[in-house]
Amino acid sequence: MTLEPQDPHWASRVHDAFAAQSMMRTLGVEIVSLAPGRVELSVPFDERLRQQDGFLHAGVALAAMDTACGFAAHSLMPADARVLTVELKANLLAPATGALRVVGTVTRSGRTLTVCTGDAYLAEGARHVATSLTTLIQASA
Amino acid sequence: MTLEPQDPHWASRVHDAFAAQSMMRTLGVEIVSLAPGRVELSVPFDERLRQQDGFLHAGVALAAMDTACGFAAHSLMPADARVLTVELKANLLAPATGALRVVGTVTRSGRTLTVCTGDAYLAEGARHVATSLTTLIQASA
Amino acid sequence: MTLEPQDPHWASRVHDAFAAQSMMRTLGVEIVSLAPGRVELSVPFDERLRQQDGFLHAGVALAAMDTACGFAAHSLMPADARVLTVELKANLLAPATGALRVVGTVTRSGRTLTVCTGDAYLAEGARHVATSLTTLIQASA
Amino acid sequence: MTLEPQDPHWASRVHDAFAAQSMMRTLGVEIVSLAPGRVELSVPFDERLRQQDGFLHAGVALAAMDTACGFAAHSLMPADARVLTVELKANLLAPATGALRVVGTVTRSGRTLTVCTGDAYLAEGARHVATSLTTLIQASA
Repeated sequence: MTLEPQDPHWASRVHDAFAAQSMMRTLGVEIVSLAPGRVELSVPFDERLRQQDGFLHAGVALAAMDTACGFAAHSLMPADARVLTVELKANLLAPATGALRVVGTVTRSGRTLTVCTGDAYLAEGARHVATSLTTLIQASA
Repeated sequence: MTLEPQDPHWASRVHDAFAAQSMMRTLGVEIVSLAPGRVELSVPFDERLRQQDGFLHAGVALAAMDTACGFAAHSLMPADARVLTVELKANLLAPATGALRVVGTVTRSGRTLTVCTGDAYLAEGARHVATSLTTLIQASA
Repeated sequence: MTLEPQDPHWASRVHDAFAAQSMMRTLGVEIVSLAPGRVELSVPFDERLRQQDGFLHAGVALAAMDTACGFAAHSLMPADARVLTVELKANLLAPATGALRVVGTVTRSGRTLTVCTGDAYLAEGARHVATSLTTLIQASA
Repeated sequence: MTLEPQDPHWASRVHDAFAAQSMMRTLGVEIVSLAPGRVELSVPFDERLRQQDGFLHAGVALAAMDTACGFAAHSLMPADARVLTVELKANLLAPATGALRVVGTVTRSGRTLTVCTGDAYLAEGARHVATSLTTLIQASA
């Protein structure tokens, strides 16, 4: 497995694609850091994103882990590639009682398929609230 | 497996809990129909919920399938039970190019754990865009 | 989605590939029926395949569901294609207290990827003991 | 999360339960090392356990990862507890072209549920051939 980006402009490409996701603005998700094969995001504890017990809805962590993994995979792909999530599996380990840090990391980067791990932690105290394993496919643009 | 609700007031309980999820209002998700062990939701094709290619973000279908499955499980539980998602796995079968119908169905209802299937279809034409398998746990209130 | 086989000799191709899996002989698994996009297998309640409580080991149902799904996908592919399992997720619903019937069915057949559902039932009484969702990829031979 | 075993005799308990799984003898799987919350197994490249291309059948790695995770969870439980696999998800990363080392590690140990990670590597060269995420439940004996 190589974590060498194939496109020297991978970082600006990821920033542009992230900015084009209206869903991330709606959820208030922001990029914390980017590295080849690794993306870290922040998720606010927004009152509009709760389930009935006052925690962040599981869908918020799922959406953020999916996005972090998608761009972690995207960072290693050629300039003209598109990335699609094939599937993901997530375990919810603890309630999301506050803002989150979400990390997506490439586990295996193949020609067609990429496997990533996604994790969500409470921003305060770093409690592990969700972990995921996802498969993505490279499509031509 | 029984699909008999244990709580005669299960339907109003599900409606109340759904109304208490601010995330569902933020996504514009509404209940289409409720039956014991089966919940159907609608998801609009909202411009605020897109990924970079203009499709609905995968997180939207994931959040809606999680909610549909959660309430399908909830509908069969005692009046004072809470339901928590343990884990879910979803395959994204086609891009979400429009509004969605999302169905959650109980596959197995055990004393502690419930297994549900979630599916998302385009509202127009009924193309199958996502399928999921999820495990939920009954917690006391 | 089409369930039309592309290779008129799909059935003998599946039989040959199945016969070439020594693992299936070791587990005593046999083909019950084949149709395009659907494979049904039988699994004996063999004393050599148990876990510590005397039930069939989960690995037996997993191996049989993987094989049933692999050949269900294979049945729809061109004559020279190979099929590889990308990933699978399985819920174990009840202990495997006897011989099994295992069914693999194609849910979505794409150009590169195929999504299948696998299910295992007790041969006597048809209790549902496991369900799975799996992704497979078509590789050239 | 604590990785302190609750039963001082956890290691002999795991050895006994492992020895009681006839499936492990049939597959030739052996314990390499045990620690609280971590189990490492070896899997031989047995001719009776192949798929049609001559690689180890995916079911072998699945069975071994399930067993490693089951005993990793078991090692942290009270003396009279039983452990059952609720569900697992595995990504197959590369063909199993030889003998395997398989590691199960507890990610989160809760009162009722335990989440484990399973990984399989080629014994020679340590190529990562499979990774999994699994949920287990503690039942009384």
